[in-house]
Amino acid sequence: MPPNELYQFSVVSALMDGVAGTGVPLRRVIEHGSHGLGTFRGMRGELIALDGEVWKMKHDGSVLRADITPESQTEDYSPFAMVTDFVAEHRGTATLSAKSGVEDVLRRLAPDAHNTHIAFRIDGAFKSIKVRTAQGQCFPGEGLKDVASRQVEVTLPASHGTVIGFRSPQFLQGVVVAGVHMHYIDAGRTAGGHVLALESDGEVQVQVAELWRTVMDLPRGDTAFNEAPLALNDGGIKAVEG
Amino acid sequence: MPPNELYQFSVVSALMDGVAGTGVPLRRVIEHGSHGLGTFRGMRGELIALDGEVWKMKHDGSVLRADITPESQTEDYSPFAMVTDFVAEHRGTATLSAKSGVEDVLRRLAPDAHNTHIAFRIDGAFKSIKVRTAQGQCFPGEGLKDVASRQVEVTLPASHGTVIGFRSPQFLQGVVVAGVHMHYIDAGRTAGGHVLALESDGEVQVQVAELWRTVMDLPRGDTAFNEAPLALNDGGIKAVEG
Repeated sequence: MPPNELYQFSVVSALMDGVAGTGVPLRRVIEHGSHGLGTFRGMRGELIALDGEVWKMKHDGSVLRADITPESQTEDYSPFAMVTDFVAEHRGTATLSAKSGVEDVLRRLAPDAHNTHIAFRIDGAFKSIKVRTAQGQCFPGEGLKDVASRQVEVTLPASHGTVIGFRSPQFLQGVVVAGVHMHYIDAGRTAGGHVLALESDGEVQVQVAELWRTVMDLPRGDTAFNEAPLALNDGGIKAVEG
Repeated sequence: MPPNELYQFSVVSALMDGVAGTGVPLRRVIEHGSHGLGTFRGMRGELIALDGEVWKMKHDGSVLRADITPESQTEDYSPFAMVTDFVAEHRGTATLSAKSGVEDVLRRLAPDAHNTHIAFRIDGAFKSIKVRTAQGQCFPGEGLKDVASRQVEVTLPASHGTVIGFRSPQFLQGVVVAGVHMHYIDAGRTAGGHVLALESDGEVQVQVAELWRTVMDLPRGDTAFNEAPLALNDGGIKAVEG
């Protein structure tokens, strides 16, 4: 796809309803963009895509590089992912004392993109980052709220690394996660996850792109998706993805 | 675009908030698909696209063919449109005594597409079709609910013609119109509008395509869009688009 277009597979409400048994092959996700986040089949782990690579961050603290070569015998699938071919349009620096600081700097750098998606990347040193990693469904169809009740939360010690994220408008809650949704991986690719809280160690570099076109694929041929209620659960999404 | 992908420009919630001062040139809408519906700048009239042509149905009952040639000096813009390059995947016939009959036949023909968009086309004879045509905004920023309060409603006499429509899942209410959204034009291209009620004269032909990929463009550089609340107004949309 051209740069700075959002590709998304499925919708967050489907994860809330436990639709995670299948999905799109990782290789096909990455064809649409090399910057992004998502989850894996069975909601086992957190996906982060950056610099042409896809990493799987698991609840046991391990970080695995996903095999996305055409020859892969072990390719995984993603039941929900958002990616873009990221080309920064706005750049700045920020000292972050909380997650809300990310929202502030994004608003400052992209004031005209209030009602569309933006993709961002934050590089630098962090005093602490609190992450969660989903352990996965205990049974097919288990919803994200219950999966999240068993998530592993860890506060990583000081590290250098990269946050990859999206900020999405409120009117797309349920289609995606409204507000800021971001995953982290450290520079050594040894630790990371879905970011719950963060504090930078001095200034970090922030890069932002506005995404005005979205390409959304829905899970064709997936009976669980076809039968899911997909009712908007604003509070539930905020609780598990906030 | 490949057949049976949905292209949409902007979102219905933006019309609810009165964001209709600009939009996308009609020629660019049609590049993405020749089957569809929408509105015009200022919400003046109802748009229907079929068989490679775009028609503007106005509140005074007139029907104008839109000039979409590259040489056009009078090209209009659409602040909201949905189109696809329609290739029927399912075909059937139905005798329709009410709008709910359309929902029934769509469910029957595309049972596996409950949670995605479907595009449809109905050709045949109608005993009566009740249509509305929006007169347009009285001032920039006037919301669709107020615009609709001045809409012209007409029950057309018996005619042959074509209904072009989409059925969209409930979880996309506000992004589009959830449920069935359809426009009609008669075979002579003399009358039509947004369909409020219909009754067929015997059997009509129904063609359906499932749309599993959506390409959505949001109005970049449109200050009104950037500042719109875009809050979900489920009841309001049902009232004006039902």
